[in-house]
This record gives sequence, structure tokens and C-alpha cells, in this order.
Amino acid sequence: MKYCFGVDIGGTTVKMGLFEATGEVLEKWEIKTHTEDEGKEILPDVAASIEEKVKAYKLAKEDIIGIGVGVPAPVTEAGIVHGSANLGWKYKEVKKELEELTGLTAEIGNDANVAALGEMWKGGGAGYKNLVMVTLGTGVGGGVIVGGKVIIGSHGAGGEIGHLCVNPHETEVCGCGKKGCLEQYASATGIVRLAKRKLAKETRETMLQSDNISAKTVFDAVKAGDEVAKEIASEFGKYLGYTLANLAVVTDPSIFVIGGGVSKAGEVLLDYVRKPYQERVFFANRDVEFALATLGNDAGICGAAKLVLDDFAE
Amino acid sequence: MKYCFGVDIGGTTVKMGLFEATGEVLEKWEIKTHTEDEGKEILPDVAASIEEKVKAYKLAKEDIIGIGVGVPAPVTEAGIVHGSANLGWKYKEVKKELEELTGLTAEIGNDANVAALGEMWKGGGAGYKNLVMVTLGTGVGGGVIVGGKVIIGSHGAGGEIGHLCVNPHETEVCGCGKKGCLEQYASATGIVRLAKRKLAKETRETMLQSDNISAKTVFDAVKAGDEVAKEIASEFGKYLGYTLANLAVVTDPSIFVIGGGVSKAGEVLLDYVRKPYQERVFFANRDVEFALATLGNDAGICGAAKLVLDDFAE
Repeated sequence: MKYCFGVDIGGTTVKMGLFEATGEVLEKWEIKTHTEDEGKEILPDVAASIEEKVKAYKLAKEDIIGIGVGVPAPVTEAGIVHGSANLGWKYKEVKKELEELTGLTAEIGNDANVAALGEMWKGGGAGYKNLVMVTLGTGVGGGVIVGGKVIIGSHGAGGEIGHLCVNPHETEVCGCGKKGCLEQYASATGIVRLAKRKLAKETRETMLQSDNISAKTVFDAVKAGDEVAKEIASEFGKYLGYTLANLAVVTDPSIFVIGGGVSKAGEVLLDYVRKPYQERVFFANRDVEFALATLGNDAGICGAAKLVLDDFAE
Repeated sequence: MKYCFGVDIGGTTVKMGLFEATGEVLEKWEIKTHTEDEGKEILPDVAASIEEKVKAYKLAKEDIIGIGVGVPAPVTEAGIVHGSANLGWKYKEVKKELEELTGLTAEIGNDANVAALGEMWKGGGAGYKNLVMVTLGTGVGGGVIVGGKVIIGSHGAGGEIGHLCVNPHETEVCGCGKKGCLEQYASATGIVRLAKRKLAKETRETMLQSDNISAKTVFDAVKAGDEVAKEIASEFGKYLGYTLANLAVVTDPSIFVIGGGVSKAGEVLLDYVRKPYQERVFFANRDVEFALATLGNDAGICGAAKLVLDDFAE
């Protein structure tokens, strides 16, 4: 039997999993992410945790295919990160460093790209080879898969669809420095922004209270039939649906998989996206599926494992 | 020595080329495209013309790798077209039909995708593996290449970037039935439309005459320093540059190659696109090249040949 590790490095915790090559998970665990001192302990901590499991399971190094890793930053094909605000990293040769620390092969990918791979492998996109995953969390991440392979791109910025400009008239600035990015409307914080703007000039009665707004309270109110909340959801849905219609003519996917915290709203969220999508989309791209991500927090470790398994299979 | 044929089927003529496997062109020629009767003679005409050259060059069938073909329509991975307005075709199994007619392997691609492959192979994008080609002709076509492979997509609609919606407020309808497509602003006819709109309310003196406008007269006037023409070029450049900035975060190319009749304006056209691109683009995608296509009308036959050569190499 061959094994591999899937590692999902986040700003607070590092999620880790030990997998059989067949995809079976033997164990999942987490360690703390030490972001102090430019995050210099993160990779040594990961290496030490892997070493511990190798011993605990009495694994022979030659039976370990490698370590797949997702990180919150653009990653080049050579496994280099040019900076990650969440981890404190500046320029870091992640692949090289982790391989030296562990003596194992490592494959590094952007966290959103890796999550997309996980959802394609055993989640909401299982069975498809051309898919676009959109992760609606604090920000908006994306992963574009063509023929079963994630598009990494020339600068590791493939699938950064949270930074598609969707509103040239926006006056507030996105985290990236530009204005009008998809992330400003379709992320958890974006939905709160839309809701606050709406409530500031709303006179109708609504369940929503502007001092206690979240993507969850908005979609809960939608489910309870609140008209104001429905209009906020429609605005969110238009920004996302129109953007996916534009993405469709670029890579022509079979399915869009929507994940991240906001997607916990469930099927109702997909309904708000499908309608504007169909309204705008090029005729050849009408026939596309919309699905919710199903792996939740495990998408990262699964996709990371798949990253190194794919490489092994080639 | 091995050989292959590159065939570029257009609405008026079929351009054809006989290539050595090394990429050397032995002969280029054209035949008329017979679009009458739902274009049923087009493939038999192509087959007969190939047969003629096989005899003339005394080629052994086993030395012919195959026939690559570009057609003006979305093409599925199986080489099927669901309709081409320009050729009169309805549903047609192009690959199967041409293989039966010739006894040779055939690979079929969308004409804009095939042209992109040609420019990557021996044109403006030579040396790059991640590129986006934009063809500015009567319409706007596109070809998106990742890792040296054209993105075909699930419905053969990959790279149909002429139908990205760039102006939701447009009132006129695009050929595709939607409103606000890139094609309505950045094609040869789109530029004429922008110019006429401008001239209708223009009071300043200008070289441009609204009864004799073309993309060429606009860019000629730009080169002569005409201020009105410069503003039209700026508007065109914004639509195209902003769109390319959005494309950049999807597939993260190294280079954009601009071809088609409009690109005959030359380097000045690239200047009008670069500026708005840099203004809007995500920081990770700033470092990208812009180049003009160099193969002109030969891009199609070259890319078509490359289509079948790539397949042979695998």
C-alpha cells in the first residue's frame, strides 16, 4: 500500500490528513499555524507533524508518495510563493524547503485551486473534468479545472476570480487595491456590505438588523420570506451569476461548484445564481450544472493529497 | 519524411497547406467554399483537393500524419459541429466524415482556437505556452492556450471571448442575441459603430467622415494625430484592455496576441490596449506581454497542421 499526506495551511490552523493512495483517509488532524517571525516555523511544524505520523503508523519512506500542500497565496509551478499576508511569508521556496525538511516529494498549490481539485475528486464536482469552483468565504477564491488539471498560470494567479472587475463604478477599494472586484459583492463580507448599503436607505419592515448582519442572517431571512433580504440575495446573485456567465465563454466548464462559508445557505443560493447566469450566458454555455461543494473543510486536504497523487500517476 | 495537411475553412474560401512534420510549408493553395445545400460539398471538395496533392507529390498514405482543420463554429472534442452559419452546416460529424472521405486521420478545431495555436507555434506567440489570442475581424474570436494546449471546453465554446459581456447597459443586440458583448465594440464593425456614435454628436473638426468609416480609417486618423479618432481608439482600447485584465485572472497568460484585420493598425493599437489593461489588472498579472499576430491569413493553416502534429506526438 502507498500513502500520501494532504496539508492545508490556513492563517489560524494547518489541517492535515494521511491518505491511502486509493483516496481513503486514515487520519485527520490539525496543528496551530505560527505566523510570527514571518511564519518561519510553519513548514518545520508541518514537517515535524508528518514525521510523527510516519513513526506512529510505522510507514516506510519508500511507500510515501509525497506531501501535497495548499497555501493561501499564488503559487508558481515551481512551488514558490512570493508572499502570503495570511501566513506572514515573504518570498519562500515552499516545495524546496519542505522537501529538504522531510526528505519527501512535495507539491504545492494555491488553497482555492487545491480545494477545487478536492471537490472534483470526491466532492460536489465528482465525475467532471471541466469545472470552475468558487469559494465564497471572507474573500472569494476560485479554481479553474480543464481536462482534470487546475490552471495555475504563468504567475500562479490562475483562477483568482475574486478579482474580476464586476462593477467599474465602485468607489470603495478592494483588499487587492482595485475597485469593483467580485469579492466586494459575493464574499461573506461583500454580502454584509450589500446588506448595509440596502438597509441604510430601506423603509420597509425587515427581519434584518444592520448591527447584526452576516451572510447567514441574510440567507436565513431569505428563507423566512423577508422581501428586503431577497433583494439583497438577488443583487449578490446577479454579481456572481453574471460573472460566471463571462467565465463560461473562457473555459466552457460542465459544472460550477460553489463552496466556502456562504454556501452553507444551501440550494437557495444556487437558485439566486442560476437565473442571472441564464439571462446573460452565451448560447453554447446554457447547459451547465450548478452544485454545492460537499467536502467542507476537508476539501483542502483532499485536494492537496490529489495534487501529489496526480503527479505520481503521470 | 512525414507530412500533414492544414485546412482553414472559411465562408468564402478554404485555405489549405501541405506541411512537412518539421513545420516547413511545401505548398499553399485555396479552393472556393461551396456553402449552398447546407454546405454539403465542402468536405468532399477538401478531400478531393487533398487527394490531388497526394498524387502530385507522390505521397505514400502511411507518411501522412493526418489533416488538421479549422472551422468557423464551436467544435466538440469529438470533432462535431452543431451548426455553422458561415458554412451553412447544421449538425455535422466533421472528423468522422472527413476521415471516411480521405482514409486519413483528421483533427477538427474552432478556427479562432486553431489560429491561436498557429501563432503560438510560429507566430507572435512563439516561445510561450500560456497565451490568449484575440482575433479582431468582422467579429471577435479568441483562443485560450494553457500549457501549450487550446482550451476546447465542454461544449466546444472555450475561448469565445467575443461574447464576454462588457457593457450591461448596451441597447443594441449582438449577433449572438445578447447585448453588450465585446464583439460589439472591439471588432471591425464594432469600431465603426463606436465611431458613428461619436461622430453623430461631435462638433470638433475631424478627418473622419461618417459615410466612409472603417477600423482602418479610424487608426489612420489616429496616426495622423486626429483627436476625435484618438478618443474612439481609447474607447475601443478600454473595452478590450479591461476585458483582457479580467481574462488575466482566469488563466493567467504570459502573453496576449492580437490578430485579425483590425490588428493591421500595428503597434499603436497595442498602446491603446496596454494602458487600460494596466489600470485594471490584478497585481499578479501586471507582468504580461502584448504582441501582434504575425502569420496573417496563414495562422489558420499553420494551427490546423499543428493540431494534427500535436496529436501525433502524444
